[in-house]
Amino acid sequence: MRVKIVGLHAPHAPRLRTLLGEGHEVEALAAFPPTGEIRADAVITNSLSTDEAARLHCRLLQVPGAGTEQVAMQALPGTTTVCNVHGHEVPIAEFTLHAMLEHALQLWSYPARLDAEAFAGCYAARPQHDEAQGKTVAILGFGHIGQEIARRARAFDMHVIAVTRGGRQGAAELAHEFVAVTALDAVLPRVDTLVVCCPLDDGTRGLIGARQLELLGPKALLVNVARAEVIDEQALYEALRDKRLGRAALDVWYRYPKPGQPPVAPSRWPLHELPNVRATPHISAITPGLLDRRYRFMADNLGRLQAGQPLHNVVFQSPVTRRENPDRRPA
Amino acid sequence: MRVKIVGLHAPHAPRLRTLLGEGHEVEALAAFPPTGEIRADAVITNSLSTDEAARLHCRLLQVPGAGTEQVAMQALPGTTTVCNVHGHEVPIAEFTLHAMLEHALQLWSYPARLDAEAFAGCYAARPQHDEAQGKTVAILGFGHIGQEIARRARAFDMHVIAVTRGGRQGAAELAHEFVAVTALDAVLPRVDTLVVCCPLDDGTRGLIGARQLELLGPKALLVNVARAEVIDEQALYEALRDKRLGRAALDVWYRYPKPGQPPVAPSRWPLHELPNVRATPHISAITPGLLDRRYRFMADNLGRLQAGQPLHNVVFQSPVTRRENPDRRPA
Repeated sequence: MRVKIVGLHAPHAPRLRTLLGEGHEVEALAAFPPTGEIRADAVITNSLSTDEAARLHCRLLQVPGAGTEQVAMQALPGTTTVCNVHGHEVPIAEFTLHAMLEHALQLWSYPARLDAEAFAGCYAARPQHDEAQGKTVAILGFGHIGQEIARRARAFDMHVIAVTRGGRQGAAELAHEFVAVTALDAVLPRVDTLVVCCPLDDGTRGLIGARQLELLGPKALLVNVARAEVIDEQALYEALRDKRLGRAALDVWYRYPKPGQPPVAPSRWPLHELPNVRATPHISAITPGLLDRRYRFMADNLGRLQAGQPLHNVVFQSPVTRRENPDRRPA
Repeated sequence: MRVKIVGLHAPHAPRLRTLLGEGHEVEALAAFPPTGEIRADAVITNSLSTDEAARLHCRLLQVPGAGTEQVAMQALPGTTTVCNVHGHEVPIAEFTLHAMLEHALQLWSYPARLDAEAFAGCYAARPQHDEAQGKTVAILGFGHIGQEIARRARAFDMHVIAVTRGGRQGAAELAHEFVAVTALDAVLPRVDTLVVCCPLDDGTRGLIGARQLELLGPKALLVNVARAEVIDEQALYEALRDKRLGRAALDVWYRYPKPGQPPVAPSRWPLHELPNVRATPHISAITPGLLDRRYRFMADNLGRLQAGQPLHNVVFQSPVTRRENPDRRPA
């Protein structure tokens, strides 16, 4: 089988070769060729333009992550199935809980160097930090990631509000409340932490704007582990700068470095300079455990493709393909 | 009723007065008088010397915390009952989980200021952090604090080993394994995090020495939220300095500032200067929630004393008192 792995994930080609074993050809490409047909049995990439999609001839487009918003689905030929992969929910939930505990503990309010003078200065009248227990967390997007966050937050006896597109009620052991995104503004005033972990699409772009940040208020924490654009960029900067929003842990950004292009700051606004922002370079999911889980999953999916078995995590299939392959239904 | 609140907790006298209401006299003292009788219905203190104990005439010695190792129990008159108070297990468990997540995430390995250059420099080849999931945590001392830590650690799918004095088996939902402290060395090589949360007594002083730290190893995290002296001071410093132990989150110390005395560093060894030490000034439990829970509990116990009802959290009662008050049994 011929597999192309393209872009940011190309350096992981050796890992995939090891997992697939003999008899497969794995080609690593920093980028798609600018012209001409792109032919393979499977292509692994998280980004595909309309032009690239029109030149693509493959049966499986395997996205090596969850988000597919950079893939021009509608321009794909009818013979291509798109799959994504999970496994990042564990480290992202851990990242999120760390941010919540960090916000409660405020360890930066204690001396960075606990020498004799500092100890004497802070011991008798120690600043009091806060507790996570009893706090309310709203989780915007209640898929794999949201549910893993909820499970851990509940062990801390936090009150969990799941905010979903339709507000469909779920099991009581998952969340204390399920509300529709249309009711978000009504719950925000009693929310201590808002976690953004929903897909980016036309319904969520700019969903969190100046009004929502104002409703969260000056003590609240905002965690974004989804896509930056769910939150209005300027409104976010201004709310944090003016301390109308307490703090943010931001792992996803409005601008990313691109190979061969000049460096760019992660936002047009100097978000990364604010003392109440924890800015990380999109690392919440990047663990050896994640890569291990993801590449095993993708190798398994490639094996399924070769054996003609139903693929896992199908997120898009053209009507043509669906007719030809009745087993391959969108998940 | 006459209540004396003495030492570090004296500044909280107004809070206690508010809770007790009219008809009670709450006296705040920075220290016990150097000579003469100490008379009250109840004394609130976490420290009482043999000399002070011999001069004490009160029915209730209420320790405003859990640890009673600074109270000279055996020198107390037979009419004094000693009670302690919990409520700190929640913030201490949160502090401990934060330390474990911090150790997994290693956020200090990312740029402190995520500007354009830093973003470009770290994005393509992002360092990989670790996950808490699947890690093994040994909890030395499995009382209130240990069990709250265990509950939260399990939500992260960590493997929990409860290490207790006698190794008595407990419920499977509390810990995956229960071992006696005599078997500690045998489990340490597979432990990723050791949390020390046992009382300090003759059986635990110096329990964690050079050999135990060596068995933990260069990737492990050590969290101490109990008393410093459970861990050998010099061995701890040398293991961390030489990176034979990975990292430590230390909230409790070998030396504390004392009013009217020159400042002292928290250890005879410069532990607080090591980059792999998170040194905090005994704050893991100090939250408004804790103080609220504790003073409500103590006000309730004082009310019980006045009404002649059984006291809560009795930790010591002389044989004389036990004969006179058959209801007041040690908890």
